[in-house]
Amino acid sequence: MIHGPNLNLLGRREPEVYGTATLEEVDRRLAERAAALGVELETVQSNHEGEIVDAIQAAAGRFDAIVINPGAFTHYSIAIRDALAAVGLPAVEVHLSNIAAREPFRRRSVIAPVCRGTVAGFGPLSYLLGLEAAAALARPQG
Amino acid sequence: MIHGPNLNLLGRREPEVYGTATLEEVDRRLAERAAALGVELETVQSNHEGEIVDAIQAAAGRFDAIVINPGAFTHYSIAIRDALAAVGLPAVEVHLSNIAAREPFRRRSVIAPVCRGTVAGFGPLSYLLGLEAAAALARPQG
Amino acid sequence: MIHGPNLNLLGRREPEVYGTATLEEVDRRLAERAAALGVELETVQSNHEGEIVDAIQAAAGRFDAIVINPGAFTHYSIAIRDALAAVGLPAVEVHLSNIAAREPFRRRSVIAPVCRGTVAGFGPLSYLLGLEAAAALARPQG
Amino acid sequence: MIHGPNLNLLGRREPEVYGTATLEEVDRRLAERAAALGVELETVQSNHEGEIVDAIQAAAGRFDAIVINPGAFTHYSIAIRDALAAVGLPAVEVHLSNIAAREPFRRRSVIAPVCRGTVAGFGPLSYLLGLEAAAALARPQG
Amino acid sequence: MIHGPNLNLLGRREPEVYGTATLEEVDRRLAERAAALGVELETVQSNHEGEIVDAIQAAAGRFDAIVINPGAFTHYSIAIRDALAAVGLPAVEVHLSNIAAREPFRRRSVIAPVCRGTVAGFGPLSYLLGLEAAAALARPQG
Amino acid sequence: MIHGPNLNLLGRREPEVYGTATLEEVDRRLAERAAALGVELETVQSNHEGEIVDAIQAAAGRFDAIVINPGAFTHYSIAIRDALAAVGLPAVEVHLSNIAAREPFRRRSVIAPVCRGTVAGFGPLSYLLGLEAAAALARPQG
Amino acid sequence: MIHGPNLNLLGRREPEVYGTATLEEVDRRLAERAAALGVELETVQSNHEGEIVDAIQAAAGRFDAIVINPGAFTHYSIAIRDALAAVGLPAVEVHLSNIAAREPFRRRSVIAPVCRGTVAGFGPLSYLLGLEAAAALARPQG
Amino acid sequence: MIHGPNLNLLGRREPEVYGTATLEEVDRRLAERAAALGVELETVQSNHEGEIVDAIQAAAGRFDAIVINPGAFTHYSIAIRDALAAVGLPAVEVHLSNIAAREPFRRRSVIAPVCRGTVAGFGPLSYLLGLEAAAALARPQG
Amino acid sequence: MIHGPNLNLLGRREPEVYGTATLEEVDRRLAERAAALGVELETVQSNHEGEIVDAIQAAAGRFDAIVINPGAFTHYSIAIRDALAAVGLPAVEVHLSNIAAREPFRRRSVIAPVCRGTVAGFGPLSYLLGLEAAAALARPQG
Amino acid sequence: MIHGPNLNLLGRREPEVYGTATLEEVDRRLAERAAALGVELETVQSNHEGEIVDAIQAAAGRFDAIVINPGAFTHYSIAIRDALAAVGLPAVEVHLSNIAAREPFRRRSVIAPVCRGTVAGFGPLSYLLGLEAAAALARPQG
Amino acid sequence: MIHGPNLNLLGRREPEVYGTATLEEVDRRLAERAAALGVELETVQSNHEGEIVDAIQAAAGRFDAIVINPGAFTHYSIAIRDALAAVGLPAVEVHLSNIAAREPFRRRSVIAPVCRGTVAGFGPLSYLLGLEAAAALARPQG
Amino acid sequence: MIHGPNLNLLGRREPEVYGTATLEEVDRRLAERAAALGVELETVQSNHEGEIVDAIQAAAGRFDAIVINPGAFTHYSIAIRDALAAVGLPAVEVHLSNIAAREPFRRRSVIAPVCRGTVAGFGPLSYLLGLEAAAALARPQG
Repeated sequence: MIHGPNLNLLGRREPEVYGTATLEEVDRRLAERAAALGVELETVQSNHEGEIVDAIQAAAGRFDAIVINPGAFTHYSIAIRDALAAVGLPAVEVHLSNIAAREPFRRRSVIAPVCRGTVAGFGPLSYLLGLEAAAALARPQG
Repeated sequence: MIHGPNLNLLGRREPEVYGTATLEEVDRRLAERAAALGVELETVQSNHEGEIVDAIQAAAGRFDAIVINPGAFTHYSIAIRDALAAVGLPAVEVHLSNIAAREPFRRRSVIAPVCRGTVAGFGPLSYLLGLEAAAALARPQG
Repeated sequence: MIHGPNLNLLGRREPEVYGTATLEEVDRRLAERAAALGVELETVQSNHEGEIVDAIQAAAGRFDAIVINPGAFTHYSIAIRDALAAVGLPAVEVHLSNIAAREPFRRRSVIAPVCRGTVAGFGPLSYLLGLEAAAALARPQG
Repeated sequence: MIHGPNLNLLGRREPEVYGTATLEEVDRRLAERAAALGVELETVQSNHEGEIVDAIQAAAGRFDAIVINPGAFTHYSIAIRDALAAVGLPAVEVHLSNIAAREPFRRRSVIAPVCRGTVAGFGPLSYLLGLEAAAALARPQG
Repeated sequence: MIHGPNLNLLGRREPEVYGTATLEEVDRRLAERAAALGVELETVQSNHEGEIVDAIQAAAGRFDAIVINPGAFTHYSIAIRDALAAVGLPAVEVHLSNIAAREPFRRRSVIAPVCRGTVAGFGPLSYLLGLEAAAALARPQG
Repeated sequence: MIHGPNLNLLGRREPEVYGTATLEEVDRRLAERAAALGVELETVQSNHEGEIVDAIQAAAGRFDAIVINPGAFTHYSIAIRDALAAVGLPAVEVHLSNIAAREPFRRRSVIAPVCRGTVAGFGPLSYLLGLEAAAALARPQG
Repeated sequence: MIHGPNLNLLGRREPEVYGTATLEEVDRRLAERAAALGVELETVQSNHEGEIVDAIQAAAGRFDAIVINPGAFTHYSIAIRDALAAVGLPAVEVHLSNIAAREPFRRRSVIAPVCRGTVAGFGPLSYLLGLEAAAALARPQG
Repeated sequence: MIHGPNLNLLGRREPEVYGTATLEEVDRRLAERAAALGVELETVQSNHEGEIVDAIQAAAGRFDAIVINPGAFTHYSIAIRDALAAVGLPAVEVHLSNIAAREPFRRRSVIAPVCRGTVAGFGPLSYLLGLEAAAALARPQG
Repeated sequence: MIHGPNLNLLGRREPEVYGTATLEEVDRRLAERAAALGVELETVQSNHEGEIVDAIQAAAGRFDAIVINPGAFTHYSIAIRDALAAVGLPAVEVHLSNIAAREPFRRRSVIAPVCRGTVAGFGPLSYLLGLEAAAALARPQG
Repeated sequence: MIHGPNLNLLGRREPEVYGTATLEEVDRRLAERAAALGVELETVQSNHEGEIVDAIQAAAGRFDAIVINPGAFTHYSIAIRDALAAVGLPAVEVHLSNIAAREPFRRRSVIAPVCRGTVAGFGPLSYLLGLEAAAALARPQG
Repeated sequence: MIHGPNLNLLGRREPEVYGTATLEEVDRRLAERAAALGVELETVQSNHEGEIVDAIQAAAGRFDAIVINPGAFTHYSIAIRDALAAVGLPAVEVHLSNIAAREPFRRRSVIAPVCRGTVAGFGPLSYLLGLEAAAALARPQG
Repeated sequence: MIHGPNLNLLGRREPEVYGTATLEEVDRRLAERAAALGVELETVQSNHEGEIVDAIQAAAGRFDAIVINPGAFTHYSIAIRDALAAVGLPAVEVHLSNIAAREPFRRRSVIAPVCRGTVAGFGPLSYLLGLEAAAALARPQG
């Protein structure tokens, strides 16, 4: 689970858009859901695009799927897009807010085309649903 | 749960894009998940935009949330958009395929801005996750 | 007088945009104004594009003019546009809200170029003024 | 009632587009309708954008509503738009011709978003209907 | 053979664009040509997008090819496009008029990319040529 | 019958797009169809835009109609467009492939607006159908 | 002859673009050429769009043609365009500089479509050639 | 110091956007700051584009720099742009509001490219800072 | 003097657009004007872009200026543009018709930015005025 | 005070655009002005987008306002934009050069809409004026 | 090695853009490098698009790779693009100048997508490097 | 030699696009070629935009030229562009793949305009040719 820039401010940042739950609370709920799904979960947050690229590269061989909220990088980080394509793990893009209902520039995701799918608009629940999707994608098909 | 045009062909239609599960199988899995979530579920499929508008209007007062896969109407049916906005129920847009990775015209959803959120790209699992999101949105907040 | 999709919800639908008068009240005021103008008036409402096309076609030979609020179809129904052009009756486009002050996609009318004119933004009064315009257009010029 | 540039040529200017009635005749019909509606009416025509801005500013406190045919200024005079927004009176935009059926650049109105509504395409009748709309807007709601 | 919206008005509708032959006359000439080509032909006309989607779906298994004049739906009905792609029959798009020489919005066909080819601009002859193309496509290659 | 640039490579050039028939075979089939239709046919192929312009100009007075596959020139040769408009003969544009399903730049034809109609997507059959259309256009109407 | 805004600064204003001749010198050369052509010439310069509209309107009935350098108004004054169209006199647009080789916004003239033609890029000679063109247009054809 | 259209309404006009200080109060603060900076200051306000062009032309030789809030003219008056370029004085564009955060059309300034710089968004303080910048630009460099 | 493609049809080609004078008549009038101006003139016409490029290259060292009506090549022949820029002679672009009032694609000239100026819209007179401009440009300045 | 990428090269980098003052000199002048204004000032420069996001987040609670020259990040760093919006401090965007007069891509600022205002084009003076604006914004209003 | 239009002027044509080496000198250096690489080289230059298409077609079977500087044709000759695609030889696009740093229209290459790669901006060295690339591409892979 | 993001995965990352050679192998071949050219070479790879900016700045004074494969940063990193412009060393952009034949967003390079030239599409050979170009650019001209 990769949290993009400014998500460390969750709960304090524009709560009318992003809700009042902090990143710690979100991570706790994620851990519970991961346990319920029987999957191992590791989370990382960074404001640095390069660190997120590094983290994606490091996931190859260690994880079976990636859940990522690229935050602002959603809209321009082709480096992250290329990293996801390069490691080839099934990836799930999640967003707290419904980006389709916000500023026009937020409607374009350069990340989405290299992910398997997207969950957006449900606040912290987006993360939980994205985790469930990733768990299903990581499992052998059958 | 509203299924848009051509979804009645599910399982037979371009299975490399939409998978091999039929609409009946998807509906059965949805019913199971609805039971697990403790929510009542009714499903409708139509190839007629007007029938979908009628169905959305009819949902007001009878349901607490709408899950909709608008199919092709995603990209141009402002009538469906206006119906969703008019009834004011929380709505969840779902897609079987990852529309962000397909033809450019499929990247634009006129429906998404009036929904609470979107789940796309996970095949029938998109429906199950969308149902869970709708169940959460329908519940009193707290 | 043709009412497009979702107008049957008038009074209940987003009243801050469309006002609190119901479609029945609007139709009653229209009937009064028609009587005052000395014209016969028939009204139809449908959420189905095809029914509106049928209604326009059926107007040929029975009516001298058409007043239409195409609702959401304003922005994409070339079928309705073609029907209006095909029957050749003078047509008046009316809108309750000032579509020029709303979302960008609402500023484009595919219907307007085949109408004689437009009245928009005055709530139910738009209908009354549109009716008066249609009555004048239907009268022999002189 | 504010008439924009070149409207002083009415009746002589491209009569196939604008009709054969002169501005004097239009003003006479407006005066009659104003009397019938029980409202006071003052009209001004100018080819100078600045004079129209001045006239709009001067209307504040003296009138209850503005009816304006901005003519060519419709398409670029943000100064007139700002003046209308600044004085805050309800405004009605009117056009003799159906601007939606003419050159593409005539389809964009920078004025319309700050008006309450628009009447276009009915020749001098546009003015009379616009006046009736303005009279209704100027009246206390109820 | 599927006729789209407003084609039932053929012969009466804008004859300078669409010619004076009625739909019945066109269908009669089609039947003669079908007989000459040794193929069975069924025709349907509808102003309702949903009915055309239904008709395309119903063609699967019963016919070897589809000839369609989508009329106004040519330019926006992704539902019809998806239906054609879903049933997978070879399809031929036909138009009476030369849509490349008309309004800009008529130059875009959302249907053409899922058809095998297009015949446009020759009036009723477009139908006959399209039928011949469909007959050839339906035949086993060799 | 005018064949544009690179059509001399037919049969060898990208056969998955253009088929395996050579230009000679296509011309032979055209000659047979011309005989069946009772029309005289002359064919020319050139990779030079100027020669095609010359050929079109030379057709005036000698032929009653032109069938042209402008090949790559379809998308930018306004000189060929102007030549077709200048000689005023009825012209038919034909394409082997379905240009609507290929690269975006192939969807724009600068030639089509000055032709009577288009046949595209049926391989060599496009030529035969185009010839039949041209024969009908060349005949006195009646 | 109508000189638009800032042309009174000619000779002092950006001489590398507009040359060193003053407006007086240009007007003197114009007077000489008018005499040689046997035509009467009146010149006006204004920085006010409204005054130019007034001048164009006043030309109707007094002159047989208009030569105009609209200066900056070239690119946005639809009021001047409408005035030229309204009076119906043959008009010639002239420019000192080659506007096609300058900033992109200078390449668009809203005036040119209602003029008979344009002369641009030759400094004061543009005026003389424009005058000769206007003299020819004003003469009875034959 | 040049104030553009509708700035005479300052304090009364949309105070949530433009603040409550009147133009007189702004001018008083400007005079104080000018005195503190040791510069002479003259102010003019006009709703007429042509008068602003005249004022800019008249500044040549009398002033060392121009501070201008072009108001609505910011977005389309190429005549003002050309006047500023023609007189060649260092110019400073100022705005009360943060035009980058308002309607899209307000983000384009045709004036800014011929100014030395811009101060926007600080209410009346924008004027004071713009004056200081102009004073620095007017001083001999060194 | 270089005449572009299809100009050899002058007088016969769309006379409502291009007039009834033939190219020979135009060339005769050009010869007379050249004599009057005291300049030598050579004319060439070609439908082949490459021949026009060759002709421009051959003009270097033999002529002092070029007058060119690029015809259809105006809108896309960057090869001709580059040839004009390469030889460095002053060039004048001429057009018979007012290209600003025709199809949108005719409004873009890729040639104009490398010419000194343009004369368009006056029929054969465009050529005479263009010749006069070229004669002036070819003369030593002073 | 946050300096974006490449500003550490100030004085050496393209001095015709950015001037000859080094960052140290600019910081010294800023310190003097801060002292004169009675405000505390801390400056940071980084070529790393992530470090700037970190610095903005760290400013919350420690500072009352932010002055930022985002350098190249102005045009694409939505991460910095989101950080500024998240911390909610009044922010002032400053630029040394007049970005409105440079390459088109420099005219778009993704940062400006979340700042209170902008100062651009005055070299190091932009910083001093931006600091004064920030000081005023940080002060309690009154 | 194919040289496009105007390259025969090399050394004389805009030397500040294209350098002072003539085409003969470039060809001599190419011959030397070809000898060093052990490959046979044939060069052709033409200002005629059709001749370049012919030359590409003629290369099939005789050469193992093509190096081409399409000159102005880079930006619009789909005929050359199609010829390169049709013959299927590995092709290398070369440019003397850095087209990315010139006019916007020079940034679009319709040729590049059917080449294996591009070398641009190094003057005659571009040719030598392009030749080396072609030699490598022509060699059996291993 | 600067390698941008994800290039450390070379050989493992999408080998059908980027080939099977690892970055170490590429660097070894570069070292051999550098020795053959008699130039010193230092290579750096980073997934962090800021580190690449730092590396470019550090190159000033230490190196005579820069070869850079900006990877994903090619398409949006104006910070890297500005760094290259700031240090003023001749720079060569290289790409393994032919970016002109991939997704549309990969066709835009914000880096190319500040480089001397580009080599793209030849796999590791692009690096070797780019190095040779840089060596030539670094040498004194003559």
